[in-house]
Formats: sequence, structure tokens, C-alpha cells
Amino acid sequence: MNIKIMAVTDNKHSLKELSAILLEIHPYVDYLQIREKAKSPKEIYWLCDDLLKEGVPGSKIIVNDRLDIVTLHALKNVHLPTSGLSVNHVKTRFPEMFIGVSVHSKEEAVLADKRNADYVLYGHCYPTNSKKGKQPIILSTISEIKRKISIPLYAIGGITEERIGELANFGVDGVAIMSAIFSSSHPLKTVKSIRERCDELGSEES
Amino acid sequence: MNIKIMAVTDNKHSLKELSAILLEIHPYVDYLQIREKAKSPKEIYWLCDDLLKEGVPGSKIIVNDRLDIVTLHALKNVHLPTSGLSVNHVKTRFPEMFIGVSVHSKEEAVLADKRNADYVLYGHCYPTNSKKGKQPIILSTISEIKRKISIPLYAIGGITEERIGELANFGVDGVAIMSAIFSSSHPLKTVKSIRERCDELGSEES
Repeated sequence: MNIKIMAVTDNKHSLKELSAILLEIHPYVDYLQIREKAKSPKEIYWLCDDLLKEGVPGSKIIVNDRLDIVTLHALKNVHLPTSGLSVNHVKTRFPEMFIGVSVHSKEEAVLADKRNADYVLYGHCYPTNSKKGKQPIILSTISEIKRKISIPLYAIGGITEERIGELANFGVDGVAIMSAIFSSSHPLKTVKSIRERCDELGSEES
Repeated sequence: MNIKIMAVTDNKHSLKELSAILLEIHPYVDYLQIREKAKSPKEIYWLCDDLLKEGVPGSKIIVNDRLDIVTLHALKNVHLPTSGLSVNHVKTRFPEMFIGVSVHSKEEAVLADKRNADYVLYGHCYPTNSKKGKQPIILSTISEIKRKISIPLYAIGGITEERIGELANFGVDGVAIMSAIFSSSHPLKTVKSIRERCDELGSEES
């Protein structure tokens, strides 16, 4: 099974820059998670609008937090951050919604699975600037969690092409990558390398 | 016609304090606008949940910005701030939604009306701590706007019981009040006085 790739936006680019990067990289990733906490709902709405009009499949777009923007665009994927809406409330009202949840422990992952989340995002796996001063998880807990849940686990936090092999050994279903892509001087090149690495790992396994 | 009262929360209280005030004052106001920008979606969800369970009619609750929380609770009222979702996008997807829009000029008010907003919130009318350094509107523009739009106009910004008479003369349909209620040492008493003043003005007119 190939390791999936979720590109998570880094909240550091203008709408124009971000749109340009996303339009370039989307063919090489499985999901684009729009996580732009400093942008207004209006801006996030228009970013999604732009991506859809430029041909990004709606099935690839995951909107972080703003379920309302998901519904206004008739999209189907939302990612719920820790302080966000509860997966069970969203699932009750929108049974068809594909819902990801951020988790930081085995207990949270098991609870998310029990509440019918569609995937968990687990981390942070490696030291990263966006979580300075916080301890990364112990990587072996990935395998422990995988044994306890039935939904896919995406690893997040400081992931680079070089680290995907290690994460694959612990059994991740996918990698969620922010800085390595969005701080890269050549995001497309970086994403293509990551895609190749994931495909390689998939074919080694099979 | 009686002048309506919308109590707008001030983003300065804990959930517990806020809930206590809202439960006390709701019988005396027409709307409670939940405007808690510093609180998480999870907290705003639970605040609404608490109000509904404690008997506040859903028809009185307006959620600022978070259309998703409105839909999860099967509520019907949303207020869209300037940087929020567009009224026409929301109306297209949710034709039954009762939508308020913040406006700061005649042009914005006319546009909101044209886009099928259900009311406009216009201001700020008087100097207020929450808009320090910004010039209040010229009150006579209220009457000008009222001649141009067919939907109700609520005035906002520094409104106290003493000022409602003046606003009534300019033709407001309602007053949206934040600090005078939520910074009051006795919110219930303040709201009751405001209610009496609004009823008085209504009976004078008829």
C-alpha cells in the first residue's frame, strides 16, 4: 500500500502565493489541507473557490476547522483541530462528511476512532519550529496506536523525505507535511521527490 | 412598532459567567448575539448547547461568524462580520437562514439588502472603547439608509438607555448593545431598564 501524502498549508503565504503553490503541487499529493488560521473566512472561502475553478478536485481539498466553508462549497472533507468542533457532532449532522481529527495520544486516537472519525493526524513526530519547546511523540507509539484503531493514521510534524522510511516502518498510512513543502524554495520539486519516495516504499512492501 | 433589542456578547467573560448573564437576560431581549472571537469553536458550541438546554429559545440565538455552529445546532440565525462569509453564498446554500450583516456605510447597507440579508447592523453610533480612535458614524445617515433599504436596521456602538430615544428619532428598528449590558454591575437590571425604554418609545409612537 502506498503511503499517502497530505500537504498542510503553513499560514505564512499570501493567498496568491498559496494558490500558485497548491495549483502546482496538487497532482502529486492525495490531499491539500487548507490550514490558514490567520486568514479570514472570506479569504479561505475564496482560496477554495479559486482552487476548484482552476481544476483541483474537490475530493483532494480538506478545510481545517471551518466546516461552514466546506458545506458552502459542497465539499466533503474537514479537519477538526483540538479546539475545534467535535467529530460526533459533525458526523451526526453530516453523516457523509469525511472527518480528520488531530490527536496527541493513544487515548485520543482511540476516542476519535470510536467517534467515527475517518482518519487521525498524529504528532508531532520530529522537532519542528511550529511546536518549539514541546516534546515530540515517541515514534514507537505509532505502531501501538495502529494496533488499536481501524482508521488511517497520518503522521505530522517535522517530516521530510528522508524521514518517511522510518515512519513507514512504524506503520503510518500517510504523512502530513507542512514546512518541508511550503518553506521549500521549490515546492513542486520537493513534492515530486516525496511522492517518489512514498511510491518506492509502497513497491518495496508489495 | 417597538424597538428591538439585540444583546451582543463582549468577549470578556468566562463561559460560565456569560451563560449566567444570558440565561438571566434572555426573556427581556429579542436576540442574543454570541460574538466570542477569542473562544474556540468547541467553547461556542457548548455555550449554545447550554443556552438551549436551559430553555433559551433557539430563535433568539444569533451566532456571530460560525455558520457551522448554527447548522450543527439546527439554529437559524447567523451574523456575518465584515471579514466573514458572504451573505449571498450563505443564502444560496441555506435559503431559510436568517442572516445579519455588519455595515459601515450606506453603500454597504444597500448591497447587503440587495444580497438578501435579513437585517443590517450599522455603526458605530457613539464613541466606544471597542472602537477607540475610530470616528463614529453621523447619526443622520441612519435615516438616509432607512430610506434606501427594506430590511431592518439595528444600530450598534456605545448605545446606552439614554441614547435610544435619539436613535429612535432617526428611525432605527433595533439597538444592538454590548458594553452597557455586559460591563454592567447588574446586567439584568440594565436590560430591564432598556426594555422599558424601548417599550415606552414604541407606545409613544403608536
